[in-house]
Amino acid sequence: MRERVHKLLFEADSRAGRWFDYFIQSLIVLSLISFAIETLPDLPMPIRLSLAGFEVFVIFVFTAEYALRIYAARNRWGYIFSFFGLVDLIAILPFYIVFALDLRVVRAFRILRVFRVLKLVRFNRAVERYKMAYSIVKEELALFFVVTGILTYLAAAGIHFFEHEAQPEQFQSIFHSFWWAIVTITTVGYGDVYPITLGGRIFTLFILVAGVGVVTVPAGLVASALSKAREVQSEKKPISSKNK
Amino acid sequence: MRERVHKLLFEADSRAGRWFDYFIQSLIVLSLISFAIETLPDLPMPIRLSLAGFEVFVIFVFTAEYALRIYAARNRWGYIFSFFGLVDLIAILPFYIVFALDLRVVRAFRILRVFRVLKLVRFNRAVERYKMAYSIVKEELALFFVVTGILTYLAAAGIHFFEHEAQPEQFQSIFHSFWWAIVTITTVGYGDVYPITLGGRIFTLFILVAGVGVVTVPAGLVASALSKAREVQSEKKPISSKNK
Amino acid sequence: MRERVHKLLFEADSRAGRWFDYFIQSLIVLSLISFAIETLPDLPMPIRLSLAGFEVFVIFVFTAEYALRIYAARNRWGYIFSFFGLVDLIAILPFYIVFALDLRVVRAFRILRVFRVLKLVRFNRAVERYKMAYSIVKEELALFFVVTGILTYLAAAGIHFFEHEAQPEQFQSIFHSFWWAIVTITTVGYGDVYPITLGGRIFTLFILVAGVGVVTVPAGLVASALSKAREVQSEKKPISSKNK
Amino acid sequence: MRERVHKLLFEADSRAGRWFDYFIQSLIVLSLISFAIETLPDLPMPIRLSLAGFEVFVIFVFTAEYALRIYAARNRWGYIFSFFGLVDLIAILPFYIVFALDLRVVRAFRILRVFRVLKLVRFNRAVERYKMAYSIVKEELALFFVVTGILTYLAAAGIHFFEHEAQPEQFQSIFHSFWWAIVTITTVGYGDVYPITLGGRIFTLFILVAGVGVVTVPAGLVASALSKAREVQSEKKPISSKNK
Repeated sequence: MRERVHKLLFEADSRAGRWFDYFIQSLIVLSLISFAIETLPDLPMPIRLSLAGFEVFVIFVFTAEYALRIYAARNRWGYIFSFFGLVDLIAILPFYIVFALDLRVVRAFRILRVFRVLKLVRFNRAVERYKMAYSIVKEELALFFVVTGILTYLAAAGIHFFEHEAQPEQFQSIFHSFWWAIVTITTVGYGDVYPITLGGRIFTLFILVAGVGVVTVPAGLVASALSKAREVQSEKKPISSKNK
Repeated sequence: MRERVHKLLFEADSRAGRWFDYFIQSLIVLSLISFAIETLPDLPMPIRLSLAGFEVFVIFVFTAEYALRIYAARNRWGYIFSFFGLVDLIAILPFYIVFALDLRVVRAFRILRVFRVLKLVRFNRAVERYKMAYSIVKEELALFFVVTGILTYLAAAGIHFFEHEAQPEQFQSIFHSFWWAIVTITTVGYGDVYPITLGGRIFTLFILVAGVGVVTVPAGLVASALSKAREVQSEKKPISSKNK
Repeated sequence: MRERVHKLLFEADSRAGRWFDYFIQSLIVLSLISFAIETLPDLPMPIRLSLAGFEVFVIFVFTAEYALRIYAARNRWGYIFSFFGLVDLIAILPFYIVFALDLRVVRAFRILRVFRVLKLVRFNRAVERYKMAYSIVKEELALFFVVTGILTYLAAAGIHFFEHEAQPEQFQSIFHSFWWAIVTITTVGYGDVYPITLGGRIFTLFILVAGVGVVTVPAGLVASALSKAREVQSEKKPISSKNK
Repeated sequence: MRERVHKLLFEADSRAGRWFDYFIQSLIVLSLISFAIETLPDLPMPIRLSLAGFEVFVIFVFTAEYALRIYAARNRWGYIFSFFGLVDLIAILPFYIVFALDLRVVRAFRILRVFRVLKLVRFNRAVERYKMAYSIVKEELALFFVVTGILTYLAAAGIHFFEHEAQPEQFQSIFHSFWWAIVTITTVGYGDVYPITLGGRIFTLFILVAGVGVVTVPAGLVASALSKAREVQSEKKPISSKNK
């Protein structure tokens, strides 16, 4: 019995296991959409009630699934403290805490329910390749993020120095200047904060020349590491493009 | 006879076939430009009439071409339901439906006429390389889009939580917040919607750090897969750079 | 004699030739800066006169250089109609046309003087590598630009359909919508034009998902082709990193 | 004795050396945070005093470290004039200059204290790989920056020509137009300056088509060079992924 539940929940190979996965993933997507619909203003009562009912149903299924997973897991504590074990728990926990705490506060917890969607990425062979790619470039990525962090700090400190007298509201402190620094270096550029002094603009030009090349480096790193990972993988397993 | 039509329409090798292609492609581009001109406000009547006349001519040629293609195709139904068969049909269909339906509604269909331009990409050897590159990285791309989708949902739900009290107009619901999420993660940053609360800004910083690296990954994937595809292709065929 | 001039002007190997290049390139940069200074408003007369004097000097040197190049070139017509031969001519021509035409019109021609700077890229070994990389990926780039062009047209036509009633000023015609389409697909996003209708926003989301990945592809293509070109070059010539 | 200090300061292999590094790096990060806090407006006096006290402590530690490094360095002048020797000095110097100069001016120097953070990147094996990658692509990068510089100049000169009559305030001179040119080519697009004339907009379209592909090239170059550097490094040293 336990063996069959294990097969159903943890192995996507069997037909039943696959259909079960489709069912759970559809529920996840539907509950995310329903969560989004609930935030719509002026929602009529019947719809609000239906969504609440659906939510109860989803929580029931997910709780049952979580219980069965603990029951069927080879290594119980290993599952509970694995990444997806925790996600599974966090995806249902906020609902039960509602009854213990003030209801208004719970809205903050509800946001955690979006983590449920992370279940979606559980199964996929390409995940392995991303992991391999990540382990290949993790040192470069770490160094890259340190350098970008330094650059962002320098940008925030510098723009604060140049602009905080001309625009005391927007560039009150280095912390306030961080908002500008990140929005600029990532090239989003909302336009709510930008330098207006000559010094601040020249400083921005240097930051942009240094920063823009920098922001797209990790994408290139990951892409080249993925193509490396593909080679390694295709050497190990024979090609199985028909598989999909 | 049918063999000759087939050669003319489906094979770009012969001289006549090439000239026919140039003719059709020029017509496509011209009809797109004429479609754009028609949208100009305050267009004098004679120009409007000339454009309509040209449109009739184009539709006539394209209909004749479509009929001949069906006539000459080796596998008729195969052509009709192929991607370009459908594009060929959609490119001419809206014109005929005008007479059957209310004229105002048709303006929505007319927009489909822009698909006609897709014919332009039919012939080109590099297309093969892009297809090969796509088949190499399609799993990574799929996974990537799932993860980006999750990130976008998280971004929309998160910013709605942080901002919808401070800016009820812009962040009414998670659906409304999606607009902000996509515009931010793609680094377009129009500046029509942006967080103003401290929580919303700090949240945005995390989304940007996670998201910006992410958005350029598919480009890197495609580029490295294309260079792989180039290698495979040059192994199969001997180099023929003179060919072009 | 002619041989020596040829060596001075066309070969950067000799010491005199190198110093001559440095001199010309400094003049180019200085004249570009002086051109920029001239555009400053409220410039005092003495400075304006000095800049004009410097301009005459620069034109004199460049004209002399151009004459000597024609005199010393192995293949005279070949030089005159080469890319740099034309740039050399265009860089000095506007000055002489001043005396023949109305002075106000010349301001349009003066803008051409910026082409002078293109001389700067004449000498550099890495240029070869870029050329090789370009010839490797030119087909993909061409195809890419066609597809991006189609996407931009579709974006402009689509947004015009969705927005031109809500914002008749900004989205008057498909031509006007092109401005929005390019600014959006390149992720610049000034914020002067953006969709406000629900349909327009949803359409923009699709365009962004399709377009953003697309825009950075050529950079990846060029980068991977350059690394290929480096390999080819290092196979031909032995490594000479000391050279620089 | 001197040997032991050298081991502590310059070699991260020993346990004591590693802990010393952690201590110094924590101090650096803390002093950067404290520097940012100091810029907050309306800071109560006790906090201000604590931060000043902490600053004195940090300066004391860093001065002692600097003195010990000079004492223990194998090659003293080599250390003093090395990149990190200069950073170490600049990180503490502004503090001492306070007593010799007017206090207000020093705020400009204080900004230099952010360079202290550069110490953070001193130790890391991946740095070597970045250096190798840099030396592989430095010629391409140089050429790339020259071409981008030319493109930016052309963009600034061109937009000045098209826009300075319509928007004399924003596009006063080519120098003023540089701000627009950089903000546009890097795709930040704040929206504070943008073309409004037809000519200026069409010109911008061309600049964007040419420029956007260009900006992400260096990232691709660095990424592909890094993957090359990884290969070279893994050939020299056997794999040591356990090392981390």
